[in-house]
Amino acid sequence: MRDPSFTLTAGPTAATPRTLQALGQPIIFDYDPVFLEKFRELERKVGELMRSSDDIVLMQGEAVLGLEAAARALTCPGMKALNLVSGVYAAWFGDWLREYGAEVVEVRVPYDEAVDADDVRRALDEHPDVELVAVVQSETPSGIHNPVGDIAPLVRDAGALLLVDAVSALGCEEVLVDEWGIDVCVAGPQKCLAGPPGMSLMSISTAAWEAMERNPNAPRGSFVSLLDWKHGWVDSDRTKFLYTPSVVDVNGVDSVVDQVLDEGLDTCIARHQTAARAVRAGVQAMGLELWARREAYAAGCVTAIRVPEGIGRADALAHIRDRYGVMLSGGYGELADKVFRIGHMGPAADSLNPVVAVSALGRGLKDLGADVRIGDGVEATLEVIGEAAERTVSAA
Amino acid sequence: MRDPSFTLTAGPTAATPRTLQALGQPIIFDYDPVFLEKFRELERKVGELMRSSDDIVLMQGEAVLGLEAAARALTCPGMKALNLVSGVYAAWFGDWLREYGAEVVEVRVPYDEAVDADDVRRALDEHPDVELVAVVQSETPSGIHNPVGDIAPLVRDAGALLLVDAVSALGCEEVLVDEWGIDVCVAGPQKCLAGPPGMSLMSISTAAWEAMERNPNAPRGSFVSLLDWKHGWVDSDRTKFLYTPSVVDVNGVDSVVDQVLDEGLDTCIARHQTAARAVRAGVQAMGLELWARREAYAAGCVTAIRVPEGIGRADALAHIRDRYGVMLSGGYGELADKVFRIGHMGPAADSLNPVVAVSALGRGLKDLGADVRIGDGVEATLEVIGEAAERTVSAA
Amino acid sequence: MRDPSFTLTAGPTAATPRTLQALGQPIIFDYDPVFLEKFRELERKVGELMRSSDDIVLMQGEAVLGLEAAARALTCPGMKALNLVSGVYAAWFGDWLREYGAEVVEVRVPYDEAVDADDVRRALDEHPDVELVAVVQSETPSGIHNPVGDIAPLVRDAGALLLVDAVSALGCEEVLVDEWGIDVCVAGPQKCLAGPPGMSLMSISTAAWEAMERNPNAPRGSFVSLLDWKHGWVDSDRTKFLYTPSVVDVNGVDSVVDQVLDEGLDTCIARHQTAARAVRAGVQAMGLELWARREAYAAGCVTAIRVPEGIGRADALAHIRDRYGVMLSGGYGELADKVFRIGHMGPAADSLNPVVAVSALGRGLKDLGADVRIGDGVEATLEVIGEAAERTVSAA
Amino acid sequence: MRDPSFTLTAGPTAATPRTLQALGQPIIFDYDPVFLEKFRELERKVGELMRSSDDIVLMQGEAVLGLEAAARALTCPGMKALNLVSGVYAAWFGDWLREYGAEVVEVRVPYDEAVDADDVRRALDEHPDVELVAVVQSETPSGIHNPVGDIAPLVRDAGALLLVDAVSALGCEEVLVDEWGIDVCVAGPQKCLAGPPGMSLMSISTAAWEAMERNPNAPRGSFVSLLDWKHGWVDSDRTKFLYTPSVVDVNGVDSVVDQVLDEGLDTCIARHQTAARAVRAGVQAMGLELWARREAYAAGCVTAIRVPEGIGRADALAHIRDRYGVMLSGGYGELADKVFRIGHMGPAADSLNPVVAVSALGRGLKDLGADVRIGDGVEATLEVIGEAAERTVSAA
Repeated sequence: MRDPSFTLTAGPTAATPRTLQALGQPIIFDYDPVFLEKFRELERKVGELMRSSDDIVLMQGEAVLGLEAAARALTCPGMKALNLVSGVYAAWFGDWLREYGAEVVEVRVPYDEAVDADDVRRALDEHPDVELVAVVQSETPSGIHNPVGDIAPLVRDAGALLLVDAVSALGCEEVLVDEWGIDVCVAGPQKCLAGPPGMSLMSISTAAWEAMERNPNAPRGSFVSLLDWKHGWVDSDRTKFLYTPSVVDVNGVDSVVDQVLDEGLDTCIARHQTAARAVRAGVQAMGLELWARREAYAAGCVTAIRVPEGIGRADALAHIRDRYGVMLSGGYGELADKVFRIGHMGPAADSLNPVVAVSALGRGLKDLGADVRIGDGVEATLEVIGEAAERTVSAA
Repeated sequence: MRDPSFTLTAGPTAATPRTLQALGQPIIFDYDPVFLEKFRELERKVGELMRSSDDIVLMQGEAVLGLEAAARALTCPGMKALNLVSGVYAAWFGDWLREYGAEVVEVRVPYDEAVDADDVRRALDEHPDVELVAVVQSETPSGIHNPVGDIAPLVRDAGALLLVDAVSALGCEEVLVDEWGIDVCVAGPQKCLAGPPGMSLMSISTAAWEAMERNPNAPRGSFVSLLDWKHGWVDSDRTKFLYTPSVVDVNGVDSVVDQVLDEGLDTCIARHQTAARAVRAGVQAMGLELWARREAYAAGCVTAIRVPEGIGRADALAHIRDRYGVMLSGGYGELADKVFRIGHMGPAADSLNPVVAVSALGRGLKDLGADVRIGDGVEATLEVIGEAAERTVSAA
Repeated sequence: MRDPSFTLTAGPTAATPRTLQALGQPIIFDYDPVFLEKFRELERKVGELMRSSDDIVLMQGEAVLGLEAAARALTCPGMKALNLVSGVYAAWFGDWLREYGAEVVEVRVPYDEAVDADDVRRALDEHPDVELVAVVQSETPSGIHNPVGDIAPLVRDAGALLLVDAVSALGCEEVLVDEWGIDVCVAGPQKCLAGPPGMSLMSISTAAWEAMERNPNAPRGSFVSLLDWKHGWVDSDRTKFLYTPSVVDVNGVDSVVDQVLDEGLDTCIARHQTAARAVRAGVQAMGLELWARREAYAAGCVTAIRVPEGIGRADALAHIRDRYGVMLSGGYGELADKVFRIGHMGPAADSLNPVVAVSALGRGLKDLGADVRIGDGVEATLEVIGEAAERTVSAA
Repeated sequence: MRDPSFTLTAGPTAATPRTLQALGQPIIFDYDPVFLEKFRELERKVGELMRSSDDIVLMQGEAVLGLEAAARALTCPGMKALNLVSGVYAAWFGDWLREYGAEVVEVRVPYDEAVDADDVRRALDEHPDVELVAVVQSETPSGIHNPVGDIAPLVRDAGALLLVDAVSALGCEEVLVDEWGIDVCVAGPQKCLAGPPGMSLMSISTAAWEAMERNPNAPRGSFVSLLDWKHGWVDSDRTKFLYTPSVVDVNGVDSVVDQVLDEGLDTCIARHQTAARAVRAGVQAMGLELWARREAYAAGCVTAIRVPEGIGRADALAHIRDRYGVMLSGGYGELADKVFRIGHMGPAADSLNPVVAVSALGRGLKDLGADVRIGDGVEATLEVIGEAAERTVSAA
């Protein structure tokens, strides 16, 4: 089978030529002075993207590793944690908290809604002894975006640590670590940065480090240990790696971070938001239904669309891939068969890629008997893209 | 600072152009049918390289992850384990075994010697209740090779599980999983395969799986869990990843495995052994001293050389890198300043790369005042390479 | 300014990742045995693509070089040549014939029509002393396809040499050198093969060689000399290049030829024809007018569309490029401002690239005030693509 | 057969990873604004490398095309030209001059010597009506360097045009177009720039343009026409290409020019000179004989070495390539079997590549029975490299 012509998925997503060239550059020794310098400089640049002046840790392993590492390092048996659940990933995170011994309180909404800051306030009022609040800023499995900017001040006021899963938010939404007071922020390179899927990009506050140090259960001497990073790297002279870093992944992540910084983070975010609006406009104009109950809940990275009655999710995706060379995503976890997901991340948020996504989904569903108005969808998609381009030109 | 012209290190090591192109190929979705098929096929091919018909697990994270995962999964509190220690890595592995609750018996030799199979026999006779034997086939930090082929039958006879760290052995030494009865074999792509340093390549026997299943302490629901792989991937239909695999690393590893299979594993091993002999001949003819007390102990992947009196290890390496554009390695762990290491892995084992390594080391040391006979060294190096080439031609 | 996201032009056109990797492979010496073998093998494969058992000549320089070389080599002062003119390139070729001293007879049609074989028959009847007939199979500047398959037998019957400019025909139309009796066939890698624009791919019959040998004016000792190739390469042992071949271009052309052979030439042609039909359907459904007076005249490589009243060609293309990141082509030569051209060559003929082209052109023109029905256009485009995919699946 | 591990030839030569990435970047349309801008900017940068404020012309086709184009454009029947011949290429250039009708006067020296400026002075005194002087600055076939800096003022004083073949001189010798008053300078990217072998880089003075305009025989309407470039590109708004430029070659040349400018042209030249001295020292210390009668004649790009008695040139090169994976060059033209050539151009002039070249040649010859002292050779090579590195550090 041939490679797809278009990868417009929920991540890993298509990379730019510049990224691919960075991945294909010569592999050098991790202790080569060029690499050591690049690694340290990458920490600085990731901090810049996260608007963070805290310590940056670049673990090898996709973001689930960073999330597990953070959960393990911060969870003491018996502590109380507030988990904000609007999707699959948050629910899974709660499982970890419980497994590691926390008493978990939840604010939970249906998976097609976002967490409401007012509910968080009420929960924190009710549980003043919460020590840790965890939230997924952007639920990739369902394309739901939670208002971390509204939630963060509440957490700070409550004196709890704030852990944010910003894996698919970084690059398409504001993630303001310093301003919001995020204690642990975990991002991934394979979503809106459109990099290789092999690293956890983390920002760790002093308070978070202190909590880990106090935690006898925090892993030490392990691949999942954040404290190892603190003691062996952050607190030392940053010349001895804890294990061989993935030179290739670092090269790739370095490139995508540079690309976002070159573009300007705000421009990058705006571009993703435009692509997201274009896709939402397109699929709705075609007669399909968004998963997000309100557009305000919808994320900038992926758009989830309800699978129409009578259509099989897997069959439809395979059909679109086979016939049209376009790879889209299905749902994930318990939503697996309920939604299609169109990714608009990295280069997939550029140019007319949203038109490709909308056309492919529309035509594929039509082939399978669904009643979709493809032309209306494409026109609506183009309208959003065209207006945004017009505004950009006018503003320049 | 510019990139080095030659990376002749202990790994990560220089990759071939074909590998770099594989790393730079388009990133596709992990659930794209092309990727799923490639991943499953890679498992088959890794098994072929390991001469294994057991289950193959391809974890994301450099080999230290696979080793930790194996140690955790196999170690029950109170069990007795025999750890064969001839170097830094084996000693570290023992720390894990102890941390996870094992009673650890050791066969230990100085780090410039290899483990002797007779000592292993004696230890197993003395401790018939040993359930697990761990051995590092090739100690990268010191370039020492242990005779796993001699040790394995003893372990099998003793009824214990055999765990082999073959990280830097695969590709330059025989690693015969089925024939030797290795229960857990862990290899890495960034050594003799000359691939990207981001994965653990593992072979797991049925007996090992059973031991893990019986072990209440074996991690579950974790990035370091082998049982997750068993339940979620190996025992299922291999269509649902446990986490996003690193598409880029998989592409790179797939390529290097193909390259070794195209070359022929035996040819690949012979090529590494020739390069190792050439470097050993060269450094000795220059008047330097091998770390390995006997050449029979010396590994095929890297050659460790004692740092001459009066020379600073770090200064010498920096000098060689700055002046000559050649990156060599120092020691590691407690051997850090005692040895230089020349890597002859992957393309660094080809052609006249050993001459470059010997010349660079020789000239660098001479610049710093050491008494080395560079010309003799290069001639000796070339003699080994030339004779091997002659034999190859004669044999063909 | 950033690179375009989509290059859907009249050539050079977007290349596949595989092609880009071939272009980026190490540069080796032209007399390296690997390169010499590759070069000779490429000749064989180009012959396979052209369905030719004649000698193949791979000149360095884009196809205009090959065409000039052929015109110079074959034209004797005073000879009579029949030039079939349905576009800009054929007219230019006639200028060469005249400059080199031929008496040129023409069959000429308006540039939005194809040459009619009956007219050729009449011309040959009227001028039985014609020694050379020249025809452009596919007029890239206007997207007009001439029926070389119908014309060739007439030329053969007339005893004249047939020179075919198949630059943009190879890969999207049948080009049957042996069966049709083409004496000189010139193709280019940068059109439907989607390769680098730096070579002339030529097939030369024995009769053509003989004519060149007889021609005192045929260049010798020159970069434009075909006879040099005959004497120095074809007739010798093919071990001495006439000048340094472009190793990089050869690598790229070798790759694209392999890709077409892997796909199957017939499949490749069908794919291009589908894309062409899809684009024609789309632009017409949008309310735009094809340049080709009849669809039967339209080429498989590019589709030329009349610039609507009141729209500036250059402004529109710049607008589409700036706002939407899509590069389309204008006309060429005297047609420069009369048409837009959408290229559907190589990967641009795959998947939903025609939808991108139609959407971009439609939206761009709408922005500038034209009355276009984008939705209808996209639906019509998808209908052609969808039906072709359906037929392919049914046939399989 | 596998690719060579080292390409240390007379060109095309090994490229840097950065160059390969530039060659592998996406192919875009030649009229894309990004490409047009890059092309014009490349002209400016080539002028910078040549220290030229004259017009730059970037023809597609390796430098032999540019040389033929210049010879044709400048030669009027009956004019008198002075050709300075110290090697194969100069002799060939004289053949062109004669073929196009010039009366050719020669200063000729044996091919292992350089032209003497005093001889040129005498010739110009004797032939005051010489209108054109042609000189090859660096005779790649024999590694001989001619003192163009000494010759140029004589030509200027004589009122003749000066044409310099700087194909393999640019990047390893000073080429000062403005200061020396070179009227036509032709360079190639595949020598010391280590780029793709597909372009002619030319600088043309006003006087040279005027001479071409006056010359009725100067080609017009041809791939070899410089006047076409003048009228269609240089004198117009540089928006219409004469033919499709090789986007890929331009990308590659742009990159190598950038790399030299980043390094600094003087540093680049010094690096080549060091490598040349190192190789000369090495081969002589081994007991081999330079082709150049005096070291002062020896070029910076390649070193020619006399084939020892009893050794077959082709056999030796094939042996070295087969056994050691190193590709060296033989001679060229009438020198084909008289010399070996070691290229030290681009990255082959970096780091310890000269050691590889000397070792490979030495060992290969020894295998074939020659009496060579490899160790002495390598030590001498390293001595030159080491001293140069020491001086560089001291100077910094």
